[in-house]
Amino acid sequence: MAMSAENEHPAEAFGWAARDCSGHLSPFKFSRRATGEKDVTFKVLYCGICHSDLHSIKNEWGTASYPMVPGHEIVGVVTEVGTKVTKFKVGDKVGVGCLVGSCQSCANCKEDLENYCPKMILSYGSEFYDGTITYGGYSDIMVSDEHFVIKIPSNLPLDGTAPLLCAGITVYSPLKYYGLDKAGMHLGVVGLGGLGHMAVKFAKAMGVKVTVISTSPNKKKEAMDHLGADGFLISRDIEDMQSAMGTMDGIIDTVSAVHALLPLIGLLKSHGKLVLVGAPEKPLELLAMPLLMGRKIVGGSLIGGIKETQEMIDFAAKHDIVADIELIPMDYVNTAMERLSKADVKYRFVIDIANSLESS
Amino acid sequence: MAMSAENEHPAEAFGWAARDCSGHLSPFKFSRRATGEKDVTFKVLYCGICHSDLHSIKNEWGTASYPMVPGHEIVGVVTEVGTKVTKFKVGDKVGVGCLVGSCQSCANCKEDLENYCPKMILSYGSEFYDGTITYGGYSDIMVSDEHFVIKIPSNLPLDGTAPLLCAGITVYSPLKYYGLDKAGMHLGVVGLGGLGHMAVKFAKAMGVKVTVISTSPNKKKEAMDHLGADGFLISRDIEDMQSAMGTMDGIIDTVSAVHALLPLIGLLKSHGKLVLVGAPEKPLELLAMPLLMGRKIVGGSLIGGIKETQEMIDFAAKHDIVADIELIPMDYVNTAMERLSKADVKYRFVIDIANSLESS
Repeated sequence: MAMSAENEHPAEAFGWAARDCSGHLSPFKFSRRATGEKDVTFKVLYCGICHSDLHSIKNEWGTASYPMVPGHEIVGVVTEVGTKVTKFKVGDKVGVGCLVGSCQSCANCKEDLENYCPKMILSYGSEFYDGTITYGGYSDIMVSDEHFVIKIPSNLPLDGTAPLLCAGITVYSPLKYYGLDKAGMHLGVVGLGGLGHMAVKFAKAMGVKVTVISTSPNKKKEAMDHLGADGFLISRDIEDMQSAMGTMDGIIDTVSAVHALLPLIGLLKSHGKLVLVGAPEKPLELLAMPLLMGRKIVGGSLIGGIKETQEMIDFAAKHDIVADIELIPMDYVNTAMERLSKADVKYRFVIDIANSLESS
Repeated sequence: MAMSAENEHPAEAFGWAARDCSGHLSPFKFSRRATGEKDVTFKVLYCGICHSDLHSIKNEWGTASYPMVPGHEIVGVVTEVGTKVTKFKVGDKVGVGCLVGSCQSCANCKEDLENYCPKMILSYGSEFYDGTITYGGYSDIMVSDEHFVIKIPSNLPLDGTAPLLCAGITVYSPLKYYGLDKAGMHLGVVGLGGLGHMAVKFAKAMGVKVTVISTSPNKKKEAMDHLGADGFLISRDIEDMQSAMGTMDGIIDTVSAVHALLPLIGLLKSHGKLVLVGAPEKPLELLAMPLLMGRKIVGGSLIGGIKETQEMIDFAAKHDIVADIELIPMDYVNTAMERLSKADVKYRFVIDIANSLESS
């Protein structure tokens, strides 16, 4: 029998996969490796749907390999650990985010920045060390080297915690790196979706004043009353934007469509920082003079390292922070993808894997 | 008699001014204020010609007021000090750069960042506190509040020191602020003109490895043999650029024409910093993904504060750093401006004010 996804490894696994760039997901039998010395195997309970899952299943970044089992916001309960695993035991609540491998020897890995390792291995659609393709969390079990496994404190509800593993760390990491985490600072958050609503929650917990910047006036009530934002600007309202010029220490910009940077740079104080965490496919326009005049910067940030992801989860536990989610059964996933493409979700779909995958 | 430039102040002054946006400079009688309590008056010996002088006299930024006496790289010898001046005495060698005033009470001023004060007063073409227009260093005398006067150590030749007051501090300040001043780092310098050649000199003195990036292959010998750069890349040579991808901690980009940022961002290591000190009038294209993937930044920087300018001059004195200049008489200034517009100078014109102004 030729090696296939179903028999290349010894452990049976089951999930939902996309077979081609239609992105349509359907039930899929495959296999996982046996629990290695340093591996943690866990039963998947919940998996968040990240916007990048949608890009990936449709091969919008041109790097897809099919069949593809998406999912990199994965939480569950440990069922087996390898003989040399030191950090986890059976029964622990754990999570895996975007990464399941990295070289662990480059300058970035040595500084706990596996997320910038040129050889990082993504949780799905990447080639693993053994030559097989990684499969993500829209599936019943996961196996990962313990280095890439996050411990989830007991007070965090697991469904709302799943999105922290990508959406959460994606905004937490730049708040820390760019020094926008100091109490009393004023932060702008552009876009109130999965990433944006997490940025508001983390920044508020850090004691930062938060103003949401959105194209949608109807998000104001939600942003201020429900998420606790201190201010709200409609990005197309010139008077609104003018009133806040030069008031922000930093901005987390989560928008992945082409948009104007100049008004955002104008919102910054001198030495302010505009951090992009969304990646529009086409170039944005950058006028140099406003950067010079205020010694401002435009920077990027991509998820976070494993150590910082653990720190973020512990911070979330301390401050009772989880994502606002809509819990869905596995067989709703294609509808969820359609709704996600229209930004019709508050604020993250999470798949109730353990309760709905078997019956699919 | 109506108030005019010639009689609005008590002290006679003489310089060269542009009268309209032709930018043509010609002899001009005007006046300076009497030495106030906190003022330093000095005889101008040398004044550098900055590229922004050329923009200003032609009103290319739309903010010109005529007659305009340009010049903000001004050095000379103190002839009189006010009764409350504490830092200077008659006979001191001093300089004035781009600034002669700021509010001295805003957040930036309190942190010695007068260069980012919203009320900063430029050395020429700005409205001074008394409502008169400031005149720059293409003239025989200067008067300035001592706060904005720089002391020049005795070992520095004054002619080559003049350009440090703008070109020098413009590249020194971002090297410090963006942390690109650490021995062993690798810095790219884009553009080998007045600013670029100073960036090479300062970075080398800091122990930084420097690679010059230029469109002109014929600058290689000069960059490496004369200025001591460690490497040279021709920006249009794809192989050249590819060979250096991911090797630089930072880049000082001095180019003020529209140019591609993407290849420069590619030269940076993870977490690298591309700092713009030139300001192209039209927007540059910025692709977000390369910033995200390496947590890179694009930042700006504008001259420097007074405290840091003194620090820069003291650093230059310690390391025997001055600008490479072509010393010219006052009546050569219009020809110099023409040559400057073609980048035909190594690397800065300096006007020999004291020896050539009277005879004009």
